[in-house]
Amino acid sequence: MADSLRDLLRAPAPPVQLSSLDPRATPLSPGSKERTRDVMLAEGDKLAELQERLYAEGSTGGRRRVLLLLQGMDTSGKGGVVSHVVGAVQPQGVRVTAFKKPTPEELRHSFLWRVRRAVPEPGIIGVFDRSHYEDVLIGRVRELAAPDVIERRYTEIVRFERQLADDGVTLVKCFLHISPWEQKERLLARLDDSAKRWKFNPGDLDERALWPAYQRAYEIALDRTSTPTNPWYVVPSDRKWYRNWAVGRLLLETLTELDPRLPEPTYDVAEQRDRLIEEHPIS
Amino acid sequence: MADSLRDLLRAPAPPVQLSSLDPRATPLSPGSKERTRDVMLAEGDKLAELQERLYAEGSTGGRRRVLLLLQGMDTSGKGGVVSHVVGAVQPQGVRVTAFKKPTPEELRHSFLWRVRRAVPEPGIIGVFDRSHYEDVLIGRVRELAAPDVIERRYTEIVRFERQLADDGVTLVKCFLHISPWEQKERLLARLDDSAKRWKFNPGDLDERALWPAYQRAYEIALDRTSTPTNPWYVVPSDRKWYRNWAVGRLLLETLTELDPRLPEPTYDVAEQRDRLIEEHPIS
Repeated sequence: MADSLRDLLRAPAPPVQLSSLDPRATPLSPGSKERTRDVMLAEGDKLAELQERLYAEGSTGGRRRVLLLLQGMDTSGKGGVVSHVVGAVQPQGVRVTAFKKPTPEELRHSFLWRVRRAVPEPGIIGVFDRSHYEDVLIGRVRELAAPDVIERRYTEIVRFERQLADDGVTLVKCFLHISPWEQKERLLARLDDSAKRWKFNPGDLDERALWPAYQRAYEIALDRTSTPTNPWYVVPSDRKWYRNWAVGRLLLETLTELDPRLPEPTYDVAEQRDRLIEEHPIS
Repeated sequence: MADSLRDLLRAPAPPVQLSSLDPRATPLSPGSKERTRDVMLAEGDKLAELQERLYAEGSTGGRRRVLLLLQGMDTSGKGGVVSHVVGAVQPQGVRVTAFKKPTPEELRHSFLWRVRRAVPEPGIIGVFDRSHYEDVLIGRVRELAAPDVIERRYTEIVRFERQLADDGVTLVKCFLHISPWEQKERLLARLDDSAKRWKFNPGDLDERALWPAYQRAYEIALDRTSTPTNPWYVVPSDRKWYRNWAVGRLLLETLTELDPRLPEPTYDVAEQRDRLIEEHPIS
């Protein structure tokens, strides 16, 4: 993998202007939609193999893990990424957490409380469908907390994510960037398909009406929390096939760099083999 | 699904004698290994559809969920079932928990503490790779607790699982039944394959040496905790293809009976459609 998609999609230096980033772009794409899907399947197999090694490492005392964090406006495809990308690896190596409106119990704690509880164990690829960033996104736009509280949260997030890094967690933070026109089409598709109607609720249109405020909140979040250790990636997401390939590729580049190795046996293989072959009858 | 695999594999009335149940049997199998694998793929698609409906139900206030609990001797295929069966459904609808040797924190609590924390949320298919049953299996065989403590645990388990049922959790408890000869082959295969060697540790042979005591502990567990609401299934598991198909089929029968339905919209679809089409420009 000579070219790095991580380099290409890394959030630009502040101030980020989302309106200058094309949601229909397809940087480094292997080709057409069909060709890209084929490449994605092959890369999915590589990802599965690396994940298995990471799992093996975690089962034998290693601390490393990966946390894919997905943020984006409604219909940007967080769920689609989970199905198509995360579905490529073994279920026992994955832990998906969808963060919804906080429960009363969650509200009694710091906004990071529920997030800390969902950090993946060593060896696991965790996936956050939404995350602690909601507390500086909807939290900011809907004024769910005082301005100085929101302000402090950026610092707390950076500190928290640095602690994660120190504890072996490699974060892959993806903002799935869509245009309001694409969202409109997808919302209409949800309304028109009886099998998808349950995913829609009228509140989605109230949020949509606040589109510019949300874009601004995302820009501030990217500016304040994209660090060299824990950068944000802005994934053009108007084309679903590109979005799925790109997130898979970001994960693959990340795991390739981690290069997990199958642990060496800590026992004498021949000795154990003999023991098994020469055992007394056991039943 | 005229014939019910659940009826066929349900643990017999006490006293269960595992030695009289054939681990190489293939009851209700659709045919050869190849034919069974084809059927399994088709049934996996059905399972995925039902799981999506269950997820939709859970996202809109429903309380129901499914918990697949896997127990069995080393190499009986708990991990294989997770890969092959659970891999058929969407990752966001699944939560896999592998219970290992309890941590010091877990040991400070009741044996059910860590299990309660891992019960799947509404709409989710949970999978337990090992479970609270270890506390009456290795717990009994290795005398990790006093006999009267072990004794009380069966009652606590039955009560706990009844509470789960009352809270919308349908348990599918599978004992993956293998022969000691099959285990021997699989352990040798682990030792002989450098990619699998990390899964082996010498302690596995110490446990194997206690095979009859473990079989007895399983029999007692089945006798004491198989109830009409939360029965055990004994899955013949010497043939991997049968085991995978059978566990998938048990799940499929369970979800078919639950018959989750896509929620009806609680809003006026035409009205929301108009609102979206006639909106003011938003950016």
